[in-house]
Amino acid sequence: MKFTTLRLGDRTAAARVEGDTAVEIEGYADLGDLLRRGSLDVEATGPRHDLATADLAPVVPSPGKIVCVGLNYRNHILEMGRELPEYPTLFAKYPEALIGPRDEIVLPPESDKVDWEGELALVIGKTVRRASAQEAEAAIAGYAVLNDVTMRDYQYRTPQWFQGKTWEDTTPFGPVLVTPDEIPDDAVMVTRLDGEELQRTPINDLVFSPVALVEYISTIFTLNPGDVIATGTPGGVGHARKPARYLAEGQTLTTTIDGIGELSNVAVKAPVAAGV
Amino acid sequence: MKFTTLRLGDRTAAARVEGDTAVEIEGYADLGDLLRRGSLDVEATGPRHDLATADLAPVVPSPGKIVCVGLNYRNHILEMGRELPEYPTLFAKYPEALIGPRDEIVLPPESDKVDWEGELALVIGKTVRRASAQEAEAAIAGYAVLNDVTMRDYQYRTPQWFQGKTWEDTTPFGPVLVTPDEIPDDAVMVTRLDGEELQRTPINDLVFSPVALVEYISTIFTLNPGDVIATGTPGGVGHARKPARYLAEGQTLTTTIDGIGELSNVAVKAPVAAGV
Repeated sequence: MKFTTLRLGDRTAAARVEGDTAVEIEGYADLGDLLRRGSLDVEATGPRHDLATADLAPVVPSPGKIVCVGLNYRNHILEMGRELPEYPTLFAKYPEALIGPRDEIVLPPESDKVDWEGELALVIGKTVRRASAQEAEAAIAGYAVLNDVTMRDYQYRTPQWFQGKTWEDTTPFGPVLVTPDEIPDDAVMVTRLDGEELQRTPINDLVFSPVALVEYISTIFTLNPGDVIATGTPGGVGHARKPARYLAEGQTLTTTIDGIGELSNVAVKAPVAAGV
Repeated sequence: MKFTTLRLGDRTAAARVEGDTAVEIEGYADLGDLLRRGSLDVEATGPRHDLATADLAPVVPSPGKIVCVGLNYRNHILEMGRELPEYPTLFAKYPEALIGPRDEIVLPPESDKVDWEGELALVIGKTVRRASAQEAEAAIAGYAVLNDVTMRDYQYRTPQWFQGKTWEDTTPFGPVLVTPDEIPDDAVMVTRLDGEELQRTPINDLVFSPVALVEYISTIFTLNPGDVIATGTPGGVGHARKPARYLAEGQTLTTTIDGIGELSNVAVKAPVAAGV
């Protein structure tokens, strides 16, 4: 099963995807609302929308928590000059960073080193703390694509990466949530810039699997429905290239995972406006 | 003016502090709700409670964002063997970590290096992005005390501190929010363990001031009412002592700041229960 969150004028709606059509699940403002108050085992009987032309929000627009994992693909770890880790490296991103799967990525005037990090993201469907492997597996509602777009200059200003990882309106997330049974065993993730392939990996090359991450992270705090874990990026990021490459105004970043779909996001300059 | 959040059976309530009394501000579930939907410039006309014996929640129970600052007091930076920074070091904490100012700190069975970090916390009162110094100052609703209790073993498992900083039910926050005009210029923060003084600093010894932090952080993302910035800890943490010292079962950790008040929290062992 596939689900998404539609933007409909001044409201959003949770929807179930049936072929090329997104069918509204009435009574739920978005997919996070559905996961928190309901369940994915629900009938979709509302208005129908063409998925290809629909205005899609971040698939879970306001997760309670977004936990990001660094250094989790063997090839990316080696490209960054690090050793294979004993524990997952974790950091946070705030919901303000999220954009829809076809929204523009806002390049802030403060950074000239905006980089891509295509990632498989999982979304939590059940409340878990100190989950066993079996509980962790049952707690994963499904998977989506996320690009953990990163301001490398800010990431490395201090020992903590967080300030390079959570710039407002920079992290595309979607286009749909796919239940685990529909993800192919040999699914491949590809990141492209204006059509040029920059990252490619089988998603099963993770050092710490989705289930292992839910086990580990839920030891530290409770994971709740709608919470998101971004599982890390493979090799091919711009910062590690020689010469280094970064996202520029007008370029289109696409991130695809087999069985889930595609994020396609044009980079635009931020309007510079002081205050609010 | 001083404000707090009361626990009242199965509900919470925002309250204004008048001397030794907390007066409910009717219609607001907690202080975060008041900051988001209303303003501190409001009459308190509800039921009255003795502040000394009231059950106090985290002063803002569910901040949209908690941003923590590392390495921000000169003496702590030197004690950790680091140089004075050019930029603030930032990381995140999730609301699940917060406890009330008199609640028990839960020592998880997974860590035997639980350490204290007394901190001045500021709470945002106005929405700001790319705030000027003047806008930043106006956006600070007030100050509270926070102890950024840290699992040092988990903090240093990987390059990113986050996983040692956000254990559930470990971060006391309160007891009240005090508007900026009522904080003495020469206010001192003191952390004690079973009465023994372990940290002492004037809060005006910060490398990056509260206003500077709001300016810097709001460059990266919008700060909203109820968001919290924990401004960093001074010297005297247990991990840097020779020999190192950590929080043990039954000990009472107190953290006080002149003009705000005291957190007093007993450390207890966590019940070990698998799953939820």
